[in-house]
Amino acid sequence: MRRFPEPITNLVAAFARLPGVGPKTALRYVFYLLQQPKADLEVMARALIQLGERIQTCPRCFTYTEAQMCEICLDPKRDSKLLCVVEEARDIATIESTGGFNGLYHVMGGSLNPIEGITQDVIRFRELKNRIETEPGIEEVILALSPTTQGETTILFLQKQLAPLVRSLTRLARGLPMGATLEFADEVTLGDALKGRRKL
Amino acid sequence: MRRFPEPITNLVAAFARLPGVGPKTALRYVFYLLQQPKADLEVMARALIQLGERIQTCPRCFTYTEAQMCEICLDPKRDSKLLCVVEEARDIATIESTGGFNGLYHVMGGSLNPIEGITQDVIRFRELKNRIETEPGIEEVILALSPTTQGETTILFLQKQLAPLVRSLTRLARGLPMGATLEFADEVTLGDALKGRRKL
Repeated sequence: MRRFPEPITNLVAAFARLPGVGPKTALRYVFYLLQQPKADLEVMARALIQLGERIQTCPRCFTYTEAQMCEICLDPKRDSKLLCVVEEARDIATIESTGGFNGLYHVMGGSLNPIEGITQDVIRFRELKNRIETEPGIEEVILALSPTTQGETTILFLQKQLAPLVRSLTRLARGLPMGATLEFADEVTLGDALKGRRKL
Repeated sequence: MRRFPEPITNLVAAFARLPGVGPKTALRYVFYLLQQPKADLEVMARALIQLGERIQTCPRCFTYTEAQMCEICLDPKRDSKLLCVVEEARDIATIESTGGFNGLYHVMGGSLNPIEGITQDVIRFRELKNRIETEPGIEEVILALSPTTQGETTILFLQKQLAPLVRSLTRLARGLPMGATLEFADEVTLGDALKGRRKL
């Protein structure tokens, strides 16, 4: 056995394509699975097939959904005056978990990164603009992008493009995260926390 | 969308059972897969099914194999006088990659750890003893177990049990690994490297 049997190498190759997984980790996963009952492997295989077959993109907000349109877009209790722009569909779950937002979402599908070829045509900017122009009554657009270089670039771009179209354009507050110590805060964050100080 | 659609949560749950993978990493894997073509998901699903259906254990050395018996046990060019005892099937690939061993293997399926209930009846000790007693001509048994607490315990146990049965019982050399610096070597390793010094 210079190499492993084919079913093992096939699965190692498949796992090794996951983000952050190399051949050694992939092999570790496969050897773990080899010790599990066959039924467990079939459960995982079925989950993979169903992911491909049953998940589609919501035509309005572009999140992942099982139905024709996503739960949030269909929910009449959501406030359609508020539109929250996020980078990826997973960010919706994070924002929902705060319980502090009751509006609608728009998934950009990335943030601007011209060097890697992610221009305004690759992210869903046209769809966002179109939505703001055609959906009536959007009063505030919240740009909930990550405060990374790409995220900030995208915010600047969207700010320029959308300012004439919406009444209110906001971004998430920058400040000290919960549990942080002043000692290790960087000056940009601390500066923003100071500027955005709140009355008690 | 308080939660993700069912196919996503199902696959997250399946991935989260892999060793070292938590819900966040599992979600990251699933979101990566959502951006891949459906065919890729089917390839991974098929690899999982085949792992369960086509992989079995060699009845002689207990490694994973596709055939009735593994390649190494079937190979007439391998030296049946040498038997290398390893903890897990994956260790065989590592030893084979050195190119320095041409004998047969025996996979213990673990090392002794009585606290976690891994006793001599859980690992394949009976099968090893039986093999040494019934297969003719085994001259040397190499205990290629990891020099961890459990591995060392297993080596001590096997040494006691197998000494009366085989002519030669050996273990892997302990010493400085390639690229190590004396400065950071622990005293046990360095002591072993000194005891096992080689003439140039």
